[in-house]
Amino acid sequence: MLEATFQKRVRYAEIDKMGFVYYGHYAQLYEIGRAELIRSLGLPYKTLEDKYSIMMPVLQLECRYRLPAKYDDLLSIRTILKEMPTKMIHFYHEIYNEKDQLLNTGSVKLFFVNMQTNKRVSCPAILAERIESYF
Amino acid sequence: MLEATFQKRVRYAEIDKMGFVYYGHYAQLYEIGRAELIRSLGLPYKTLEDKYSIMMPVLQLECRYRLPAKYDDLLSIRTILKEMPTKMIHFYHEIYNEKDQLLNTGSVKLFFVNMQTNKRVSCPAILAERIESYF
Amino acid sequence: MLEATFQKRVRYAEIDKMGFVYYGHYAQLYEIGRAELIRSLGLPYKTLEDKYSIMMPVLQLECRYRLPAKYDDLLSIRTILKEMPTKMIHFYHEIYNEKDQLLNTGSVKLFFVNMQTNKRVSCPAILAERIESYF
Amino acid sequence: MLEATFQKRVRYAEIDKMGFVYYGHYAQLYEIGRAELIRSLGLPYKTLEDKYSIMMPVLQLECRYRLPAKYDDLLSIRTILKEMPTKMIHFYHEIYNEKDQLLNTGSVKLFFVNMQTNKRVSCPAILAERIESYF
Repeated sequence: MLEATFQKRVRYAEIDKMGFVYYGHYAQLYEIGRAELIRSLGLPYKTLEDKYSIMMPVLQLECRYRLPAKYDDLLSIRTILKEMPTKMIHFYHEIYNEKDQLLNTGSVKLFFVNMQTNKRVSCPAILAERIESYF
Repeated sequence: MLEATFQKRVRYAEIDKMGFVYYGHYAQLYEIGRAELIRSLGLPYKTLEDKYSIMMPVLQLECRYRLPAKYDDLLSIRTILKEMPTKMIHFYHEIYNEKDQLLNTGSVKLFFVNMQTNKRVSCPAILAERIESYF
Repeated sequence: MLEATFQKRVRYAEIDKMGFVYYGHYAQLYEIGRAELIRSLGLPYKTLEDKYSIMMPVLQLECRYRLPAKYDDLLSIRTILKEMPTKMIHFYHEIYNEKDQLLNTGSVKLFFVNMQTNKRVSCPAILAERIESYF
Repeated sequence: MLEATFQKRVRYAEIDKMGFVYYGHYAQLYEIGRAELIRSLGLPYKTLEDKYSIMMPVLQLECRYRLPAKYDDLLSIRTILKEMPTKMIHFYHEIYNEKDQLLNTGSVKLFFVNMQTNKRVSCPAILAERIESYF
């Protein structure tokens, strides 16, 4: 299992009419979570795109809203990889506030596309190798 | 069954680095879809909040991404209510482009909160009555 | 003088903690305004990019906030071109609510880039010709 | 003069069709800048709202785009207060990338509203006192 936690403060722009973080905004928190998990492997997602021509479109998103996130909360985005990626990579996310309350859980499945051929491929070795040592 | 379709054009702001609509943006399309379905009943969501003190926080979101939506696409957001709301209301969504390709499907579960007591309540009669005639 | 008006409903996602449309969201309203003005000339901005390889980056933005826009307001985005574009094109915007109250005024200056050479160019003839008849 | 610098990484969601940070997104960067400058005074904006019932709506926004910000750039948002606030507070902003290139400059004027009376007021003493020592 591989995991990473990243902190992100809630901004005014992210709040909706109810006074809480807009439900559609969690996808951006998950994006931050998986980008920082991949960065922690020493291989930023930007490098995957720029150097290895691999992009990772999203296939599926699930979110469960437990408690609202509020303005100026310093959120902890916990991102977990429970299995080795194959044709897909599946990230799990947990969002906590400063009181360590679990506000939201979610998961995102992505696949891999070779940007030169525009064809779907398996998880590239360059990424799989770095993940492998955690399993 | 009750359904409504609403059209929405894709804007520059909604496109991400891949050149497609950002995966987190679909939640906003679903919001438009359910707001317009409720409006079609003659009871705008704004009236539910302002006059009846009922708000509808989101409990769960699911999205499946089939084909990318592109800049300037005129999307059709089809929103379907398959069952009478009870303690929850469950909207299904289908997003099509102008070529009638199904790009995305999703569903959103919301619950009802009395804004004065801040307590969870069942679907208010004012809304349930209007939906009932479709089932 | 050339002008166009387009209507856009305010969505939950666009409201901030004060209960009004977030100040940073007006740039998106201006984008809608200028895209629809250009579309009204029979030359969608998408065609400018896709067929003529011209893109229009923004150089300068100015907004003045007079009255707040609220949830579910049906805004009228009025977009005005006061002068023929040269090396730049300068759009003026006025945002009204349904009571015809002027909520916001702004202006956006953009320039023209040839996407093949990545060089700055003057307003392409294909666009200038269509604007000329209004002056 | 009072200033503060805060770092913010560019995310996928913030990029538009040109591959650069969307022009409307800079208002959010400025929001982060001024919130962090105020926080550095030991008085978070959230406290101003929650404890002192003061909110700060935006009156005017200006942005100048010099160079594009790109995906994964670690931006430095420099925020400067050049004058003591009176009836208004005027923040200046400079956005730099990691190569220390100046990408964008802007300014935001805000005013002060007593949230209980909903009336416009001068800069509250609690904030003015903390700023004063820098001038």
